[in-house]
Amino acid sequence: MSDVTDVLKQYSADVIKTIEKNLGVIEPQNLQDASIYLTKAGGKMLRPALTLISSEAVGGNKEDALETAAAIELIHTFSLIHDDIMDDDDMRRGMPSVHKVWDEPLAILAGDTLFSKAFEMIILSKDAHPTRVANALATVADACVKICEGQASDMSFEGNFDVNEAEYSEMIYKKTGALIAAATKAGAIMGGADDEVVTALYEYGRMIGIAFQIQDDYLDVISDEKDLGKPVGSDIAKGKMTLMVVKALAESEGEDHERLLEILKDENCSQDMVDEAIDLFNKYGSIEYAHNLALENVAGAKEAIAILPDSDAKDMLIALADFVIDRSS
Amino acid sequence: MSDVTDVLKQYSADVIKTIEKNLGVIEPQNLQDASIYLTKAGGKMLRPALTLISSEAVGGNKEDALETAAAIELIHTFSLIHDDIMDDDDMRRGMPSVHKVWDEPLAILAGDTLFSKAFEMIILSKDAHPTRVANALATVADACVKICEGQASDMSFEGNFDVNEAEYSEMIYKKTGALIAAATKAGAIMGGADDEVVTALYEYGRMIGIAFQIQDDYLDVISDEKDLGKPVGSDIAKGKMTLMVVKALAESEGEDHERLLEILKDENCSQDMVDEAIDLFNKYGSIEYAHNLALENVAGAKEAIAILPDSDAKDMLIALADFVIDRSS
Repeated sequence: MSDVTDVLKQYSADVIKTIEKNLGVIEPQNLQDASIYLTKAGGKMLRPALTLISSEAVGGNKEDALETAAAIELIHTFSLIHDDIMDDDDMRRGMPSVHKVWDEPLAILAGDTLFSKAFEMIILSKDAHPTRVANALATVADACVKICEGQASDMSFEGNFDVNEAEYSEMIYKKTGALIAAATKAGAIMGGADDEVVTALYEYGRMIGIAFQIQDDYLDVISDEKDLGKPVGSDIAKGKMTLMVVKALAESEGEDHERLLEILKDENCSQDMVDEAIDLFNKYGSIEYAHNLALENVAGAKEAIAILPDSDAKDMLIALADFVIDRSS
Repeated sequence: MSDVTDVLKQYSADVIKTIEKNLGVIEPQNLQDASIYLTKAGGKMLRPALTLISSEAVGGNKEDALETAAAIELIHTFSLIHDDIMDDDDMRRGMPSVHKVWDEPLAILAGDTLFSKAFEMIILSKDAHPTRVANALATVADACVKICEGQASDMSFEGNFDVNEAEYSEMIYKKTGALIAAATKAGAIMGGADDEVVTALYEYGRMIGIAFQIQDDYLDVISDEKDLGKPVGSDIAKGKMTLMVVKALAESEGEDHERLLEILKDENCSQDMVDEAIDLFNKYGSIEYAHNLALENVAGAKEAIAILPDSDAKDMLIALADFVIDRSS
């Protein structure tokens, strides 16, 4: 996997440079600092790398998609900043979240500023074809609406364990999958792909996005605390809705069903109770179900891009699809 | 003035229809309701009317600019929702503000959704020329960055009475003027104006925007409580920075200067103290100064659009410029 991580790092250098150039003119200084903070804190930069590699994979070059890639990272960052306010999460990327370092008003504004800058950057892409820019913008704007809808659904699901798998999947697609799909689709558009290839790259992104989210939840229950960097089953302790929860609740009845609900709703959930919930997940096959669904989505993603001609970029997209479920944290 | 109000109402019907059509598809329902709430509460709809009339004034038609006009109203609404959270304002348009009807997380999301939808609407403008769409988008994105910067400056000015007139004017231009200027500029762009005319309409919008803000502050000190719908001098009681405050502090020295600062900083400011501050404004000519500056900007705005051929739309722009300072509330 070190290959994939190295490649992400290599692509991220140009993206960070583009972001810093565009955010460096923001005034006043505290708004600029709050806006650039999470980029400096470092992230995987998976989304912008996907945009750049998608552009290359359809025969374009990295430069065509650079502003769009950076913009998509800003949209991702904007949503992290606002989500952390909404969920009152104190930490992000191993550092205090933006509204903790500054305050909520400035964090709201920093998010809004990143959002504005993201659209501005795509519009002002260097030497880009106007139709490609318009299509990339439409793609990103559509993803932004979906992110908001997904987050609103996610909040409305809190404490509501009647959510079915279709509703849960729709929420996850909007909240996480849509921007990853927009990243690959916009890359294909900026690289000059035709409609069929653009659709293929959207499907690829959508499926690895879903696999990515399922894998996050899966790692939470099957990892060692050491690998994970947090207690195993912390999602269960927090009563978080995951595919495994949805599935186990759907499959179980009677005592097991009631007990699982009890554990998820308990605000002082012990590690023993977490282990008990994981046993119930296993009993009703929900861990295996989730893992298989992630595998299927990764396979589907690779299949979707089979129409692309062979290239280093295509190989990298295949490696990235595998990386999504091979990573241990 | 009833003429102007009637015209605004007439233009607003199509804008509201366009907004409702575009927001009607948002899910889940509570996000849709929160997003559309302030539009239903009713507003002056000055900005979208300016966009439509600007498009007509340069020889385009209303339809060319309809989505852009509606988008600019959504950007305005988005900024009101987020500002009300930041400033913890409980009321807006005579109704409880969005974060009071729902909660802060949903209000943040409703603002983000309006922002996303606004860009999407411009991009998907019917039958529009791609270059015009790109230029209108760039105009709106630039205004959005400025709105965020202006709000951040405004917050950083709170309790800081060392702000000079240049800093204050820059803040007001960004916070209020930039979107009004973007409204007229984007209208001109969508109507197919050449660069010189586009610039003229930007200048027109910028100047009526500044006059509009000065007039708001001016009305607060010279009106009857009955006309204003709130106590006279409530900005002074709240210690709000206005052009009159900046000017009176710059012109006064010694006892008067200290007393004015004392009144502005007093959290339990009485009506007698407010009246005392207004007397000091008068003594140092700051009310007259503000009023004259508003008049100059209105005259400048009208001068800027002198290059337009005669038309009903041009007459309406002139009437709107006068309306900005003739209104009593």
